[in-house]
Amino acid sequence: MTDYTQIRLEKANGIATLTLYRPEKMNAFTGTMMNEMIAAMDETDADDSVRAVIITGEGERAFCAGADLTPEGGGHVFSDPNPVDDLSDERVRDGGGRLTLRLFKSKKPLIGACNGVAVGVGATMQLPFDIRLASDNARYGFVFARRGIVPEAASSWFLPRLVGMQTALEWCFTGRIFDAAEAKERGLVRSVHPQGELMDAAIGIAREIADNTSAVSVAMTRAMLWRIGGGGHPMDGHRIDSRAIYRLSRSADAKEGIASFLEKRAPAYPDTVSGDMPDFYPWWDEPVYE
Amino acid sequence: MTDYTQIRLEKANGIATLTLYRPEKMNAFTGTMMNEMIAAMDETDADDSVRAVIITGEGERAFCAGADLTPEGGGHVFSDPNPVDDLSDERVRDGGGRLTLRLFKSKKPLIGACNGVAVGVGATMQLPFDIRLASDNARYGFVFARRGIVPEAASSWFLPRLVGMQTALEWCFTGRIFDAAEAKERGLVRSVHPQGELMDAAIGIAREIADNTSAVSVAMTRAMLWRIGGGGHPMDGHRIDSRAIYRLSRSADAKEGIASFLEKRAPAYPDTVSGDMPDFYPWWDEPVYE
Amino acid sequence: MTDYTQIRLEKANGIATLTLYRPEKMNAFTGTMMNEMIAAMDETDADDSVRAVIITGEGERAFCAGADLTPEGGGHVFSDPNPVDDLSDERVRDGGGRLTLRLFKSKKPLIGACNGVAVGVGATMQLPFDIRLASDNARYGFVFARRGIVPEAASSWFLPRLVGMQTALEWCFTGRIFDAAEAKERGLVRSVHPQGELMDAAIGIAREIADNTSAVSVAMTRAMLWRIGGGGHPMDGHRIDSRAIYRLSRSADAKEGIASFLEKRAPAYPDTVSGDMPDFYPWWDEPVYE
Repeated sequence: MTDYTQIRLEKANGIATLTLYRPEKMNAFTGTMMNEMIAAMDETDADDSVRAVIITGEGERAFCAGADLTPEGGGHVFSDPNPVDDLSDERVRDGGGRLTLRLFKSKKPLIGACNGVAVGVGATMQLPFDIRLASDNARYGFVFARRGIVPEAASSWFLPRLVGMQTALEWCFTGRIFDAAEAKERGLVRSVHPQGELMDAAIGIAREIADNTSAVSVAMTRAMLWRIGGGGHPMDGHRIDSRAIYRLSRSADAKEGIASFLEKRAPAYPDTVSGDMPDFYPWWDEPVYE
Repeated sequence: MTDYTQIRLEKANGIATLTLYRPEKMNAFTGTMMNEMIAAMDETDADDSVRAVIITGEGERAFCAGADLTPEGGGHVFSDPNPVDDLSDERVRDGGGRLTLRLFKSKKPLIGACNGVAVGVGATMQLPFDIRLASDNARYGFVFARRGIVPEAASSWFLPRLVGMQTALEWCFTGRIFDAAEAKERGLVRSVHPQGELMDAAIGIAREIADNTSAVSVAMTRAMLWRIGGGGHPMDGHRIDSRAIYRLSRSADAKEGIASFLEKRAPAYPDTVSGDMPDFYPWWDEPVYE
Repeated sequence: MTDYTQIRLEKANGIATLTLYRPEKMNAFTGTMMNEMIAAMDETDADDSVRAVIITGEGERAFCAGADLTPEGGGHVFSDPNPVDDLSDERVRDGGGRLTLRLFKSKKPLIGACNGVAVGVGATMQLPFDIRLASDNARYGFVFARRGIVPEAASSWFLPRLVGMQTALEWCFTGRIFDAAEAKERGLVRSVHPQGELMDAAIGIAREIADNTSAVSVAMTRAMLWRIGGGGHPMDGHRIDSRAIYRLSRSADAKEGIASFLEKRAPAYPDTVSGDMPDFYPWWDEPVYE
């Protein structure tokens, strides 16, 4: 059994509960948390007693407030003192994408119980969950364009598949915070519950799976629906957003996005589309008419 | 004109009505029914007087109660006495997928009028229909994980495209039965009607097509939307689920799933994800980061 | 700055407004309008002061009443006196698709303000917009099958991604006109507004983007969501529908579709699926079971 420091993993009656556990930091995401969540997935996949995994955050305030940008957060690309030029370098890989690609491969169903604020990677890490529930005080934000960066964690692959292109574009273009009711109406979450009833609702679905179904059937079904029904692979998203996060997190817009956020003032972004698109854009070959 | 024994095919005023016709068996699916439905598609495609096809079930109780697992059902993989090891063997091909891939190729619009219970292949065969209507007593169930097998009939390709990934996963993970109202709310069916008004509603849509549109335009539109809009091909689903159904229908979990169902008791599935995944899993090459 | 004759392009406070401007013709689409809209996209992409583009129609009656089939419309394939046989000929390319593929490549967010009737290319040109708003008197129609042709402007790629396969098929099969409320319920438009409040609502979203986000982030996000989230490329749709429009616009069904429309009588389409499918159908290699 792994000793976790920033998450908790409990197992009982066929259900594992993974709790993001940095309550004093609104469960903000770090490299350590990423590694521990990946290790927890290895553990739940290998343990045949686990039939479903519920993922939630400690406390009643936040599921996860996004990437921890403080020194304590440790090694985030924004603060990397030795940036590399080679975008195929392993160090360029986005940490959110490392996590979501591991969640994507899970052999066990993942049920999200979003218990409060979920912004940035706190929102995107939920996209490869299979079923998402929310408490009525949950708040979401795909805030990347307000920080001078881009949606990460392969969310360009996941989000349009979950909520449709129009909603995905609106949420990512505006970067605005929205509530649980909108998340339900647009299809991001399956159902909204009073805070005190959220975990029981998640457990109810997990129980229905654990009590009635074959573990092998469920693992096969999970792989088949995501891989055949979803088409392509989220790695396509990870390849691009890793590079975009890496380049743009060093941009003047990213500095301004964070500075204006911390100083609680309106932003004044200096970069332009004509002069400051990242060097690998466009990354596709333009199809020709034949 | 073919002599059908387990379906009826009637044509009038440009509309063909294909009725699953084993009312004493809740229209349960057999190899004979599969062959007759495929033959009916050949007939409606070739007959220029047919402008739309309505597919429904005989009676007011069931559209189709799933695969007929009795000896009378005939040759279902569950009861095959001479299983093959070679998963590319033609005998491995799932019968539901043979049908849905033929429905996928139809040159005529397919309008479903789901008049009652639709579980297992009774639900999955409706996915390549173009427009699905339901009576208010309709009930659906993607019950495969409760029988130790997997969603078949290329439904891993179709279902997420129709109802989104979250709903597809929930329905297939839990295997629970749900009603017409939920089918409507989640997008599986277009509209719900009182039992006595169902056929008139289906005929109304068929009439609107037959009376106002070019047959060639409609056939081209059908191929373009499914093949370009849907992306990829449902054959991708058929290849995998045929093999999964073939292997898993011989598994201990499948035996337990059926036994517990027939004995009306809670199941106790013996197979594990660590030890009993089918030999061809994973069937994909894991993408690498470059 | 280009001199536009059939559109207007105004820029103020970071927002460009592109207005289809043939009010005496219900803003019907012509080759000139196509060229001017493409030129306007080049202009808004190159002008770093533009952070979002609103696209609307002049007047309170129509957004765009479809292709102008009169001689004044100029050079539409229906009336081409010198048709070519070679379907890879550049002249075969559908004009709606030339426009929508250019809209697809926009570096700036495109917000539609549909102020009235939008049929044919007036509806399909809106699909690559990022966010679509409608006035309460808006009316939509994918009327192609009622004219003996097919959905164009790469809409076979776009429409199912926006509203799901079932709704896309129903709208294109029936060719019926539907109102703003149905467009909202099925997911085509984000929100419906009284005619007098439509532009303010569109400006509100554009403002939220312009005031709070990085231009580079938004341009990257737009490319990532459409290209990775959407999968494949709309060029796939353009290749096929260009050829289908070219062939079918010369068909007997197309003649009958237009004649019956102009004569306000019920159509009597002569072409059949058995004898009159275009020569390039099927355009795909049928996948085999292995």
